Amino acid sequence: LPTFKLTIAYDGTDFVGWQRQANGSSVQELLEAALADLAGGHVAVHGAGRTDAGVHAIGQVASCTIERNLAAATMARALNARLPPAVRIMSADEAPATFHARFAARSKMYRYRVWTSDALDPFERAFVWHVPGGLDAAAMALAARQIEGRHDFAAFQAAGSDTRTTEREVFASRLAKSTDALIVYEITGDGFLRHMVRTIVGSLVEIGRGRRDGAWLASVIASRDRSQAGPSAPPQGLFLVHVDY
Amino acid sequence: LPTFKLTIAYDGTDFVGWQRQANGSSVQELLEAALADLAGGHVAVHGAGRTDAGVHAIGQVASCTIERNLAAATMARALNARLPPAVRIMSADEAPATFHARFAARSKMYRYRVWTSDALDPFERAFVWHVPGGLDAAAMALAARQIEGRHDFAAFQAAGSDTRTTEREVFASRLAKSTDALIVYEITGDGFLRHMVRTIVGSLVEIGRGRRDGAWLASVIASRDRSQAGPSAPPQGLFLVHVDY
Repeated sequence: LPTFKLTIAYDGTDFVGWQRQANGSSVQELLEAALADLAGGHVAVHGAGRTDAGVHAIGQVASCTIERNLAAATMARALNARLPPAVRIMSADEAPATFHARFAARSKMYRYRVWTSDALDPFERAFVWHVPGGLDAAAMALAARQIEGRHDFAAFQAAGSDTRTTEREVFASRLAKSTDALIVYEITGDGFLRHMVRTIVGSLVEIGRGRRDGAWLASVIASRDRSQAGPSAPPQGLFLVHVDY
Repeated sequence: LPTFKLTIAYDGTDFVGWQRQANGSSVQELLEAALADLAGGHVAVHGAGRTDAGVHAIGQVASCTIERNLAAATMARALNARLPPAVRIMSADEAPATFHARFAARSKMYRYRVWTSDALDPFERAFVWHVPGGLDAAAMALAARQIEGRHDFAAFQAAGSDTRTTEREVFASRLAKSTDALIVYEITGDGFLRHMVRTIVGSLVEIGRGRRDGAWLASVIASRDRSQAGPSAPPQGLFLVHVDY
């Protein structure tokens, strides 16, 4: 039975997120339905990252094993024919039988986009957080680097989460781009707590607005207390860009 | 009474086009409603280009004269507060009382985007024509140049149009970009007939598919017969980019 590694892009606007939910349409559910139609029976799909409602993906990765002998090239086309245009299999590759998209992931890269000029470009409105009035990008860039390294990120985790450990390693945390209109933040790490990226971004924006100074972020990390961090940035600015194996 | 030149961007997906229609929401109607609210009475708005249903604009230009003394800087903000996010005033400038966005326009630039790879990027799906299977971009680029110059473009005009003359001058007609996935076509001219850009693109794609050769386009122009040209490309790939005065 062939095992596949699927690279998936989706516009998260109308979804409840990656993971199956009681209410609303999830990417996982659509993918499992397309695979069931193709394979003639239930197929479990494992995604590398559980993106939240409204979060987008450029390079989500999922694994599945199907009970039908299909070439990888055929797989992508057959799935795309069964998926809505908001979800696309960008590539399908055969993988070793033991491949599991979540457990095998070594690092993930997320991107967050902030629109800072007064008039929000209508073509960007579903893909940015609009923070008009200007941000101090230089201060944000300096603060972003403080996130790098192995830390206990409990202060950035959504309330009510239960994870074994809240320690994660961040390999890179940078402002990838900053123009008059757009600030792009990118973070790569070995794993992320629920809402972690959005709460880091919400905190960086507090600094960019001048409400907090550069030293503040280190004290938030040290506090391990969610109430010390900034508010979570909204989902539509966030993209799961890449998963490394 | 101040006259304004408004530069407007809109995501045309959900509109019946620029111009007021009996059924459905038009950009002109939304703008006139916002201006009426601001000025306390009807304000006529003239747009440079009458974009069709589903066509987008990055730099549509409109003119209006309002019965209230408003600074240009205030104008953009006040209108954006009254418009849906799919329509944004990107800039507002005071203009001479005689300024009319349509009559004063010297040239307009349109862009058309064609997605050619098999899997259509979900973030592009509302902003391209998907033509999978690959196109001969070199043949299209050569043919595109044949559109340049002063011609009678009757063969590219929507059936049932009544215009005084079907002669127009095209200053530039080029493939601005062509990658494995995306072909971008740009055309600048002194004016455009209804569906002219989309029918030119539809004809270029016939050439790109190898269904017609390079000499064909000149014969279509010469025929002045709509039935000789290719089908019109769909609206969602088209953008009114810039109007020159």
